[in-house]
Amino acid sequence: MNPAERFVVVDWGTSSFRGWLMSADGEALAESRGGEGMLHCAGGASFAPVLRDHLARLGAPEAAPVLICGMAGARQGWVEAPYLKTPTRLDALHEGAIRVDAPSDIGGDIRILPGIAQGRADAPDVMRGEETQLLGVTEPDFSGLVCIPGTHSKWIRIEDGRIVEFSTYMTGELFSVIAQHSILLHAVEAAASPADSQPFRDGVSTALAAPTALTASLFRLRAAQLLGFEQRADGAARLSGLLIGSELADAMGRHGSLRSVRLIAAGALGRLYESALGAQGLDVTTVDAEQASRRGLAKAAQKIWGAR
Amino acid sequence: MNPAERFVVVDWGTSSFRGWLMSADGEALAESRGGEGMLHCAGGASFAPVLRDHLARLGAPEAAPVLICGMAGARQGWVEAPYLKTPTRLDALHEGAIRVDAPSDIGGDIRILPGIAQGRADAPDVMRGEETQLLGVTEPDFSGLVCIPGTHSKWIRIEDGRIVEFSTYMTGELFSVIAQHSILLHAVEAAASPADSQPFRDGVSTALAAPTALTASLFRLRAAQLLGFEQRADGAARLSGLLIGSELADAMGRHGSLRSVRLIAAGALGRLYESALGAQGLDVTTVDAEQASRRGLAKAAQKIWGAR
Repeated sequence: MNPAERFVVVDWGTSSFRGWLMSADGEALAESRGGEGMLHCAGGASFAPVLRDHLARLGAPEAAPVLICGMAGARQGWVEAPYLKTPTRLDALHEGAIRVDAPSDIGGDIRILPGIAQGRADAPDVMRGEETQLLGVTEPDFSGLVCIPGTHSKWIRIEDGRIVEFSTYMTGELFSVIAQHSILLHAVEAAASPADSQPFRDGVSTALAAPTALTASLFRLRAAQLLGFEQRADGAARLSGLLIGSELADAMGRHGSLRSVRLIAAGALGRLYESALGAQGLDVTTVDAEQASRRGLAKAAQKIWGAR
Repeated sequence: MNPAERFVVVDWGTSSFRGWLMSADGEALAESRGGEGMLHCAGGASFAPVLRDHLARLGAPEAAPVLICGMAGARQGWVEAPYLKTPTRLDALHEGAIRVDAPSDIGGDIRILPGIAQGRADAPDVMRGEETQLLGVTEPDFSGLVCIPGTHSKWIRIEDGRIVEFSTYMTGELFSVIAQHSILLHAVEAAASPADSQPFRDGVSTALAAPTALTASLFRLRAAQLLGFEQRADGAARLSGLLIGSELADAMGRHGSLRSVRLIAAGALGRLYESALGAQGLDVTTVDAEQASRRGLAKAAQKIWGAR
């Protein structure tokens, strides 16, 4: 890639599209985002027109190369980019990228980065998109622990730039389904967003003190309100604390010797995790999630099409 | 109560009505059941006509006394029967029954048994209906552990006929909301009912081996299928095993010294718990859930209106 050239990177998730036009040295020049995620494009046919529209909005030069990460590479996505298996080097991610045979009116080289699978029968796990964030926030010889909170929170252990082990917790998704579909819908205010409050911290503490009791602690949240110990307005924060605390209890049990964590997150969720991790005495460094994706995509793109 | 007289007992739950006409010595003479549970009757106005219809179907003598347990006594039920607080004697349940001021065309003495609350800020909990089952299956001096599986599974510790402690696990409800509303809906066959199968036993073992990892084990269920380790047809049984195993791990941790359990259950769910508890070396005695309710109601009714 000639330094004067430009390239496009895309974080194509389940429910969102985020693309950037990048300078050859990895600076974001333009951004285009929308709700045309993998689910919107499902079936395969409509990935190309969605990409074409975003390339036009970005003002991408004709035939600019495009590097994609995320669910567009899933089996039910545009073209499947088979998983790399742990242990795997993050700086070799680009070697697993697969080329997309796109319509001729999208002239450039289009590739999708692979996800990563942990092919252990005792702890099977998968990620798609997070591996690119990990590449974005780690140095080639990084060793340590990374937490990526969200719908499916991930804790990843990296040694000398290699992902050696990871676990996914259904934390965010359980919060949603429990708050919307279980009896606890009567115990959380729909409008109240979980904030870093005393009820949140109490929930975290409860989960850490009784880490095997999650499904009982959930019912107690309701009982505490019926019996006047707690208020409905605090229910969402407490529920969030119980679920994040459960995640934290298990992760700290698995990685007890590590006292510092790199946190890839943003906004209110990032602050909740900063609070919960900090309260356990962990040394937390937070990196913005979107920046992590963009940086990881840029690093991989430069490996593929020429480094700066 | 004259031995020749009859009385009516009703287990009036959230979503069902089950009533029996009883002989004075506690034998069921007729049964009437329907879907007019507390939710159906909500508001208070329609409890009386529902009861009147069932009394007619049962062929109850005019002015027969009626004893009710369950959610009809909740705050949102017919008339609130305030909770008794732990520790509380089971054979004194009837003393907490409250009288219902019913329409004059239902001529008898109508009472609702109280639920039981554990008013501890660190472990608040409530039951309504289960206390009556407990009365039904225990002798006055009973000491031991009772498990009542279901939507909200309960583990109760009884000493010398007094409930001293209990915990409620959201096991059954979590199974439903996760199977219907989370990403795991792709991992469980809607038609397959969890049976006492190898995937169920594997789920129980996984939960017992990693009792803090429930929210990670849930995601692994999906990942295991994506990676070819497990089959979708086994998903429901495995999910059931993970949730029941989590409940069991916590309950056994709390009551580790007790090696025998009285199980109040029925049908397929009862067999799952028998399997899971038995595999842990516990000595299990199962009592049919409906029989337990009926017996407990009859015991309390005889205390109120004259014993045999």
